[in-house]
Amino acid sequence: MNEHNLNARLEALSDGVFAIAMTLLVIELKAPDPESIHSVADFWASLLHALPIAGSFLLSFTIIFITWVNHHALIRSVPRTSAPFLFANGFLLLTIAFIPFPTALLGEFILTDHAAPAVVLYNAVLAAQAVAWILITQCALRSGLARDDDAQNTLRTSRNNGYGAFVLYSLLSIIAVWFPTAVAILTTATWIVWLVKSLRAKHT
Amino acid sequence: MNEHNLNARLEALSDGVFAIAMTLLVIELKAPDPESIHSVADFWASLLHALPIAGSFLLSFTIIFITWVNHHALIRSVPRTSAPFLFANGFLLLTIAFIPFPTALLGEFILTDHAAPAVVLYNAVLAAQAVAWILITQCALRSGLARDDDAQNTLRTSRNNGYGAFVLYSLLSIIAVWFPTAVAILTTATWIVWLVKSLRAKHT
Amino acid sequence: MNEHNLNARLEALSDGVFAIAMTLLVIELKAPDPESIHSVADFWASLLHALPIAGSFLLSFTIIFITWVNHHALIRSVPRTSAPFLFANGFLLLTIAFIPFPTALLGEFILTDHAAPAVVLYNAVLAAQAVAWILITQCALRSGLARDDDAQNTLRTSRNNGYGAFVLYSLLSIIAVWFPTAVAILTTATWIVWLVKSLRAKHT
Amino acid sequence: MNEHNLNARLEALSDGVFAIAMTLLVIELKAPDPESIHSVADFWASLLHALPIAGSFLLSFTIIFITWVNHHALIRSVPRTSAPFLFANGFLLLTIAFIPFPTALLGEFILTDHAAPAVVLYNAVLAAQAVAWILITQCALRSGLARDDDAQNTLRTSRNNGYGAFVLYSLLSIIAVWFPTAVAILTTATWIVWLVKSLRAKHT
Repeated sequence: MNEHNLNARLEALSDGVFAIAMTLLVIELKAPDPESIHSVADFWASLLHALPIAGSFLLSFTIIFITWVNHHALIRSVPRTSAPFLFANGFLLLTIAFIPFPTALLGEFILTDHAAPAVVLYNAVLAAQAVAWILITQCALRSGLARDDDAQNTLRTSRNNGYGAFVLYSLLSIIAVWFPTAVAILTTATWIVWLVKSLRAKHT
Repeated sequence: MNEHNLNARLEALSDGVFAIAMTLLVIELKAPDPESIHSVADFWASLLHALPIAGSFLLSFTIIFITWVNHHALIRSVPRTSAPFLFANGFLLLTIAFIPFPTALLGEFILTDHAAPAVVLYNAVLAAQAVAWILITQCALRSGLARDDDAQNTLRTSRNNGYGAFVLYSLLSIIAVWFPTAVAILTTATWIVWLVKSLRAKHT
Repeated sequence: MNEHNLNARLEALSDGVFAIAMTLLVIELKAPDPESIHSVADFWASLLHALPIAGSFLLSFTIIFITWVNHHALIRSVPRTSAPFLFANGFLLLTIAFIPFPTALLGEFILTDHAAPAVVLYNAVLAAQAVAWILITQCALRSGLARDDDAQNTLRTSRNNGYGAFVLYSLLSIIAVWFPTAVAILTTATWIVWLVKSLRAKHT
Repeated sequence: MNEHNLNARLEALSDGVFAIAMTLLVIELKAPDPESIHSVADFWASLLHALPIAGSFLLSFTIIFITWVNHHALIRSVPRTSAPFLFANGFLLLTIAFIPFPTALLGEFILTDHAAPAVVLYNAVLAAQAVAWILITQCALRSGLARDDDAQNTLRTSRNNGYGAFVLYSLLSIIAVWFPTAVAILTTATWIVWLVKSLRAKHT
């Protein structure tokens, strides 16, 4: 049977989930109620008030896009498939589809003095995403789905990055109980590092 | 004419509907109103309160993903198409697109003492989905759309599973009038069984 | 240049818009506020109250799916493209993306005694969709984009159906000012006829 | 490695984001609360009231569709890829995914006497989109990703259009602080020009 076909449709479903999650994030940015706005100054103030929501939208959009780039590179090196590999990908999609919720929490509460649960949950989802990443690469390695030795090595590096990310975001998730603002800044910083690293990567 | 083409676009539309339904589920998880939260404890309590909604999100996500895996396997064994086959698929997509509504009902009401209508409707939708499944396989079998004898047998097994699922979820839907909580647990259990069975299936 | 490629991406965009419009319809079906429901009877009553919304969801879902089937058949017979053809398709997508709004109006107001504007608008959108259909087929015919004589004839039939649909839904839209309920039933009936006709069509 | 593949999946993701952004716009058009409507006249008045929202929906839909046509033509002339090219496309998708928010603001506030912030933001997003366009074409030109000399020239024209659009929408964004209505009309006019130009373009 045609295994490539299965991953082709997995790609189509994944692209759909990634694209929708990226675009749904903006739903949290709601136009202010026209009746509560009485002047241009009021309007600017309400937009200023929406800045943390826009910031968390930007962070989550970047995270989903980078994950998409990585996911694409991974699928490309795995021409074969298996049921566990498929369901590990399903788990990754679950964490992606879930992101709009902690993003909304982060945007609404980061500037309040009870932001901790939002930052804890946000990092917990990133840790869960790392678990999905470990499962996907592990399934591919165990079942020998990789294209060749090169792909095998890429998968191993990817899996080890997954372990690193799991430890990092689990720790951040715990520390966020006491220092939510500092952790939110750190979380953002880790993705700026990822972004710069990805920008320098060769996709040739 | 190119029949494969038609099913290719059916796959594209289906992947779209599956992906959107999976991602729309999370819209029910709404950030609590910042003005109703006065402390970290309040915030945790409101997240705890959202747990049944998260649970029903997880259940529906799993159901849609497993259905997607099965749908993909089915389409793969049917290279030809026909109008009834196309519209039977449309009916399946209808049940998929509808799932976010009973999911929201289940999440909001499962812990109240009037959960029955939510559980009844949820299982009724699963029964309707089984009907869609029976129609799809039946159309493919009648019009001789299957690729070969192997595919024919797979379709027959799939149709019989559909009959089984229809009886099961219709019964659960009726019993839920009196025992909603027990039925909700049973419904979840049936999908855990499906998940384990699917994970062990060979997609090679 | 590769013209097929352009229509391939037009198909991808169209499938996306069709799939999202179909799935977004369900957003109008909102779970009732748990605090307004005090008993199982209350819950059933609120679901009963949502029936017209579910009905208009079903009607619009059917309309979008049938339009998708027709759109697919049309694109298949047009291997070449042109800028006007592309933008005529864009206009069709506009009418599809717009459907969730009149659908919501229809569902909310059909059982009230001031349903007229909802039914007028609903049929006006169907008339606009017929215009899009005329434009698409006309552009394809004028620029000679059709695959062969057979395709040419199909396009001509399709265009004439478009003219018929435009006259029909324009008239219904006007009559709805005085007889909204009767027109809503008639509109639904026309799509049942379409559905039956489509089901009997040969897609081989 | 297969570079075409990467752009193929970039196209799939992009088509998803474009399609969803186009369809999400309609969510802002909400059915009026049935309890606030007591007569057919009330209903028509509330629909009339929604006209500016429908107008901004139409404008944004047109902008996204034209951008999609241009994006498609661009990707078609770039068979190779690179990490910066990929992330420049990600930035374009960010501006597309963001459009529903300023669209909602424009629709809600354009007829009030404090519309300025909405028009400023709307044009700022169009200026950001021009930046994305410059980045994409510049990345493709620098890394020599273009298919041939023809494609190279197309990219250069496209980049120069990007510079022009950036200057134009930045200026409009600033002027909108004082003359929001005039700028809103001008912005709409620029896209009508674009639409007419695109309609006359050869896609053969």
